[in-house]
Amino acid sequence: MTSIAVFDSGLGGLTVLSRLQRDYPSADFIYLGDSARTPYGTKTAETVTSYTRDCISFLEQFKPDCIVAACNTASALALPALREDCPVPLVGTIVPAAQECLRESDSKRIGVIATPSTVKSGAYTEVLHRLRSDVSVTSVPCPLFVPLVEEGIFSGDIVDLAIDRYLSELRTQGVDTLLLGCTHYPLLKVSLQKYFGDSVSIIECSDGVSRTLKELLPSTQAEKPVSGTRYFVTDALSPFSSIASVFLKTDVEVEVVEL
Amino acid sequence: MTSIAVFDSGLGGLTVLSRLQRDYPSADFIYLGDSARTPYGTKTAETVTSYTRDCISFLEQFKPDCIVAACNTASALALPALREDCPVPLVGTIVPAAQECLRESDSKRIGVIATPSTVKSGAYTEVLHRLRSDVSVTSVPCPLFVPLVEEGIFSGDIVDLAIDRYLSELRTQGVDTLLLGCTHYPLLKVSLQKYFGDSVSIIECSDGVSRTLKELLPSTQAEKPVSGTRYFVTDALSPFSSIASVFLKTDVEVEVVEL
Repeated sequence: MTSIAVFDSGLGGLTVLSRLQRDYPSADFIYLGDSARTPYGTKTAETVTSYTRDCISFLEQFKPDCIVAACNTASALALPALREDCPVPLVGTIVPAAQECLRESDSKRIGVIATPSTVKSGAYTEVLHRLRSDVSVTSVPCPLFVPLVEEGIFSGDIVDLAIDRYLSELRTQGVDTLLLGCTHYPLLKVSLQKYFGDSVSIIECSDGVSRTLKELLPSTQAEKPVSGTRYFVTDALSPFSSIASVFLKTDVEVEVVEL
Repeated sequence: MTSIAVFDSGLGGLTVLSRLQRDYPSADFIYLGDSARTPYGTKTAETVTSYTRDCISFLEQFKPDCIVAACNTASALALPALREDCPVPLVGTIVPAAQECLRESDSKRIGVIATPSTVKSGAYTEVLHRLRSDVSVTSVPCPLFVPLVEEGIFSGDIVDLAIDRYLSELRTQGVDTLLLGCTHYPLLKVSLQKYFGDSVSIIECSDGVSRTLKELLPSTQAEKPVSGTRYFVTDALSPFSSIASVFLKTDVEVEVVEL
């Protein structure tokens, strides 16, 4: 039985989880949302690395075949330092999402939107330029997007104003591909697509992460679909289970743990 | 020399600190913002109590004359359990702010706005009714207000829409007094006053807290004004020092600590 562990600061990683559940129907999943310390994306590398280490330690006890950091801030700031000590493959979002982006973009004018910490790290700009030197990358931090998603506000006036506040310049620049460099942002995708129009391709990290796992995991084709998922959070008050149920289109039972 | 320690989950407690600096010009201050784990107000009593205990333990080492929990969520959820073990007086916001509110209100129709955790605790409703049985209290959680303030967004379209999203019913009900039951909210006071109009009195926790300290602390009248403040945060990335400098109208040097 293939077992995949996925973690995020909160709800955002569910956008990756749901994609992996679809692509790996016979795998078992463990999901951890660090809701007691969310958000990560407005905090420093030191803080995020410490929190990420706790998440990985917790997930290791389940002996998964791999651990997915479904959090761009953790992937950008913490994973390089933590990969060495992790006994199982540790998959982040940055390289997979950057590769996906380059596959999609014709003009090689790419916009990356992410949390302040991910943008500040320069991780996406660095990887995109390493993979292809002639690419033009504009990165924009959107600090209010995570609180909006964590509050279950995915569309409407406030979302539209927040999008316009952060992204009016990027829209004017005329990118052809927009990378959602935070796993919370796909929940705002409909509003973002409306704002940028259909000529802009919007890329989610989950596409790249799923492709990366295909190369990493043993083939699960022959296995019978008996997939199950356990959900853990570090704080119970967040609207995690209600939003997760809506998002994953199934009831979600959440266990609260201390890291 | 009187020494006053003040803590909050982040920036909000500065609204209390600045008031106390004005009212106690010869006191020394220590301020702690737990920016690595902000916000508190969307988290459970267990989580908030654990974080509050860490803040108090850190501040105790300075042997202050009192510790002020300039955070309504911590005051509502954690202080009753922690007061017993604290070697110095521990002052919260709930009772002082409720008393201030009753002094101000004529109609005794009071609106309380606060974080989801503070509202869920029922602390303000309970205390207001205990102090005066014929009062009518309506409490409304406003989860986006703290992220807005922590991002330095105090006015404008997004703030106005967020206010209208949460408070249109409260405005219709016709309260005469609005208690800002979160120390971040005074930074939105101008926008809130515009929305509610001048007939509604807006009460900040800092008024009540300052009055409470007068009864608690030895008179500092005779002391020479030599006040100083040390600022500590648990994460350095937040716009704490820039916003604090604007808000306190003086440059602020911040030390980063681990709790």
